[in-house]
Parts: sequence; C-alpha cells; structure tokens
Amino acid sequence: MKKLVNNPSNVVEEMLDGYVKAHSNYVRRLEENDRVVVTSRKTADNKVGIVIGGGSGHEPAFLGYVGDGMADGVAIGNIFASPPPAPILEATKAVDKGAGVLYIFGNYAGDNMNFGMAAELAEMEGIKVEKVIISDDVASAPKEEKEKRRGIAGEFFVFKAAGAAADKGYPLEDVARVARKTNEQTRSMGVGLSPCSLPQTGKPSFEIGEDEMELGLGHHGEPGIKRVPLDTADNVADVLLSYIFEDIKLDQGDEVAVLVNGLGSTPLMEQYIVFRRVEEVLKERGIRIYRSYVGDYITSLEMGGLSITLTKLDDELKELIDHPVNCPRFTQK
Amino acid sequence: MKKLVNNPSNVVEEMLDGYVKAHSNYVRRLEENDRVVVTSRKTADNKVGIVIGGGSGHEPAFLGYVGDGMADGVAIGNIFASPPPAPILEATKAVDKGAGVLYIFGNYAGDNMNFGMAAELAEMEGIKVEKVIISDDVASAPKEEKEKRRGIAGEFFVFKAAGAAADKGYPLEDVARVARKTNEQTRSMGVGLSPCSLPQTGKPSFEIGEDEMELGLGHHGEPGIKRVPLDTADNVADVLLSYIFEDIKLDQGDEVAVLVNGLGSTPLMEQYIVFRRVEEVLKERGIRIYRSYVGDYITSLEMGGLSITLTKLDDELKELIDHPVNCPRFTQK
Repeated sequence: MKKLVNNPSNVVEEMLDGYVKAHSNYVRRLEENDRVVVTSRKTADNKVGIVIGGGSGHEPAFLGYVGDGMADGVAIGNIFASPPPAPILEATKAVDKGAGVLYIFGNYAGDNMNFGMAAELAEMEGIKVEKVIISDDVASAPKEEKEKRRGIAGEFFVFKAAGAAADKGYPLEDVARVARKTNEQTRSMGVGLSPCSLPQTGKPSFEIGEDEMELGLGHHGEPGIKRVPLDTADNVADVLLSYIFEDIKLDQGDEVAVLVNGLGSTPLMEQYIVFRRVEEVLKERGIRIYRSYVGDYITSLEMGGLSITLTKLDDELKELIDHPVNCPRFTQK
Repeated sequence: MKKLVNNPSNVVEEMLDGYVKAHSNYVRRLEENDRVVVTSRKTADNKVGIVIGGGSGHEPAFLGYVGDGMADGVAIGNIFASPPPAPILEATKAVDKGAGVLYIFGNYAGDNMNFGMAAELAEMEGIKVEKVIISDDVASAPKEEKEKRRGIAGEFFVFKAAGAAADKGYPLEDVARVARKTNEQTRSMGVGLSPCSLPQTGKPSFEIGEDEMELGLGHHGEPGIKRVPLDTADNVADVLLSYIFEDIKLDQGDEVAVLVNGLGSTPLMEQYIVFRRVEEVLKERGIRIYRSYVGDYITSLEMGGLSITLTKLDDELKELIDHPVNCPRFTQK
C-alpha cells in the first residue's frame, strides 16, 4: 500500500514532531524522553494525573486525547507496539502533582507488562499509581473471561469518563473506580473489511477476499470470530449489536453512549449509515441514546471497517460524559 | 471497493438520516426539502445567513460545518453532484433573518448553475443573496485565470472566515467581502495516490499504478497536472508547496493559516509527517504559521492522498480565524 512517508524507520518520530508543531498551544514533548507528549496547559493543583498510551498507528489515539478534560500525558510506542517502561515512567513524573497518577491502557501483553513495570518504578519514586486495563472487545474472549479481552474503541469512553473525573477533582481511587466502572459497562464489536500495512514492511496485515469481511477482527489484525460474506450496512449493524446484547444486559429505559468508530479508510458516509441502524435498533428496544459519537476515534492506519461500542450509563457516568473536553483531536463543549 | 451500505441508491438519504440522529442537538432536516440540513440552534437576530453545499461524498464537508460560527444551512447533492436549486432555495428561506444570505460553494459548473438559479429565485422572494465562488486549486487552471479554478480544501477557510464574520454581526456585503478576500488569499495543491469508488458503480474513480501518484488531482478524480513516481513525504510537501509559492506572493514576516487535508484513506500519521515538512519549509522562508489544521476536512470518499492549503492572513482574517466554532464535525475554542 502506498505511503506518504520518508524513512519508514522514522515515521513515529516525524509524526510526533509534526504533531507537537501543529498543536504547540496544547502539548509538548518531554525533554527527558521524546516518546512522551504531555499537556502544556495549566491544570488544577493537586489534580490526579492521567497517563495513557500504546502503539502508534491508531491515530488520533492515543496522543490526540491529551488535553483539557482527558489525559495529561501519553507514552508512545512504535507502530502497533507497546511503549517501554521508560516513557511511561517519565510521563508519570511529568504529570504527577502529588495526587497520584492513573494509567489507562488496553489489555495487551506488552502494555500490561510495560505499564506494570512503570507503575512499580513510579511507586519506588514515591508516586502513587493506579492501573485500569480496558477490555471492551467482546470478540476477543468469552463473556466469562472478560479480563482476557482486548481493549479497542471503548477505550475512548474510559479516557472520557476518567478524564472528566480527574478534572472535577476526584481523588485517585475515585478516578480509578470510575474508569473501571466505565470499562465494566462498555462493550465493543467490530468488523474488518480490508487490511492496513506497516510502513516498514508494506505488506497487508491480513489477507481477505473481495466479498468477505471478518467479524471481531482486532485492531492490529488479530483474527476475529469468523469470516463471513460482505453484507449490507443494516445487517452488519444488527450482527455487531447482537454480540453486544448477548454480552451485557440492556433493558428498556436504560441509557447508553454510542460510538461508531471507523478503522481508518471507511468513509464517514458509511459510518453514519451504520449509526442510523444502531439508533433504530436501540429505539426498538427502548434503550435511549444519551450521547452519540461517530468518526475515526481509534484507528488502525488505513484499515477498512468499523466497530460499534455501547456504554451503559448511570447518573455519575452521564455527568462525566457531558463534561467539556478540549484536546487537539477531540473537543466537546 | 468494499462498502458498508444498504441500497446504493439510498446512501445519501441514509447518511443524512444517521447524521441528524447523531447530532440532533445541532441540526435538523427541513420538512420542506429533506436534502437540506439547517442549524437547530438559536442564532442572533438579524445575523446574515450562510448557506453552503455541494455533492455528497466529501464528508465531513459540507454538512459537518453547519453550526455555531460556521454555516447555517447546507444543500446536499448526490454523490459528487451539485444539489439542484430547490434545496438551495429552501435552505435560503430557512436561514434568512432579514439580513440576507451568503452562498459559498466551489467553482464547478453544476454548482455555479444551481446556486445561481437559487439566488435568482430567492431574490424574487425578496431575500438578498450574495455568492462567493471558491477557486483555491492551483492545479486546475493557470494563475492568470484564477476564476476558472476549482474549489477544493481551501473552502474550509472561506467557511471559517465568513462564518465568523456573520457571527460577529457583519452586514451581508462585509461577510461576502471577507469570503472573497479569503478566497483570493488562499491556495491549495493536492496529490492523489489511490482512487475512490462510487457506491452505485463500485468502479475506481481513476486508474493509477502502484508506484505512481498524480499531482493536482481533483476532488472528484479530475485529471491533475502530471503523473509522477511516488516520492517521499518531504519531497511531496516540497513539490506541492512549490506550486503554491509560484502562485501567491509570500514574504518573510507574512502569516498564514495552514491546512493539511487528507482525502479519505490517508492516515493521520502521514498527514502529520507532511505537516512537519510544511512547517520546516515555511520557517526557512520566514513565514509564520498563525494556525494549523491537520486532518480529513474535505474528503473524496476513500480516496488516498492529501492537499496543502495556505491562506495569507491580515489582521481581519486572523481575528476571524480565531473566532470560536461549535459544529458537529469541527470545534474550535
């Protein structure tokens, strides 16, 4: 696949360089470790710090969500690879204001290990750290083993809720509680239509036929649940939602936040057509959409496909979802 | 190319249905004509109305830019086809508050004809209308014939400046003046890497080799200036900028707004790598970037490639570019 890059080994560095230049009123790179981007805006004294992170290639995630009302710092890995402990630790030290730091990251072996090591190192330096591991992808493990599931687009809602809680002055244990509750109440299910390719290899991340799609495909091309014939937008929405409904109890009168998330090359037009059906199905079931998000929130380079995420809301989560955000790649009034 | 759609003939209707459901706190469809989306928010009495529009398939343009501080209404055509006069006229009637209405649209034969007819019909109904036709694409006609050039991503800056002027209470002739000035001061140049396909045909909008790219490719696949071998991000940025610098006088100390606009399937990572080089080149020339925008602002379905837009700013345009915006697909504090 064609790429507009220079040396493929430098794509992450050059992206970060461009990013902080484009958004210098919001963020800066740390001198101590240039794989760390932190907010350059003033935050309240004694606010809990939020550090997120993961591999590159998921833009606008994760770096786009550092700003007012979301995360304070991000540790940036290579493409589809976890950041090592060093940038996570430096991000932690940079954003800690004495109230402790919350790590939020998707459930992947590398992230678990590296954020875990960074947490230990931070604690040794006297910084209190909590970790919340996101596991919203219903396709990646059975219902009974939610803790084995991967984190995908639902991570956005966890960043949103935890970021709001920290901004509102919640103490660390409450920011972590809110993040865990959001993860518990969040389910995502995706479909992959076409692969992406890594700049360094140029090879497609998976092979798929012209008339096929893969249900439950992971954000790095991990195998999904099954390969099925390409279907209509409405049928795809119905199938994705059916997996979510089997997994989390949603009753008439319940309220949800919805995210239809494009994986990279799927046009907004198609995402809105899918959202249209999601709204219809939820309405038929008497489930109220409290807030809707449609767009490329967490991508996989130029992968084709999308996912649907539902987060069941209570009064506390509604207030946090409503909280304003001002980040380079996501703003909510 | 694979599409997540239902009946390909209904993609625009279903997208609009999904769009207004997702953003019902911002917009509504008109009962009089369902190809019109207007703001559902209160605007100041006697504010000049702004109506934009064009073909579908360019999302988030144009419908995503209806909201506070940008446009008040949008007339929506079929994919890559101008809206007919009827929805433009209905949009005009819906947003007019007695201060008149400005039409802003790209320089395409169909749009010129249909917005022109709608303007005549609106005048017959006693609504004062001004038209500003955008022609920022340096690839589409020689410098001496700017009025023959097509409108591409630079349309965004014209919407931004005119929307701010209307929001600030400028009278119609001044909103139009500002829009014309912005167009005069704006130049864009793009490159196409891979085609899109229309849902109804499924056929690629153009053919291109695996190692080629097309300089100056239009937003609907119109032929560009020349086909050249795929090159590095820095070289592509340099070439695109060289066309712009030949076309508009930019001196040391001048200030510009920059837009690196993705055409659909080009990852943000690559867009930021290109922005990085744009910033370097402008810095070398002593040109100051006043504001930067990077992302998919005006797309062509899943087309691959991007464009660079520079708008030369004076004090008036700087104030207008800074004005806050709150739209479903673009927010600026």
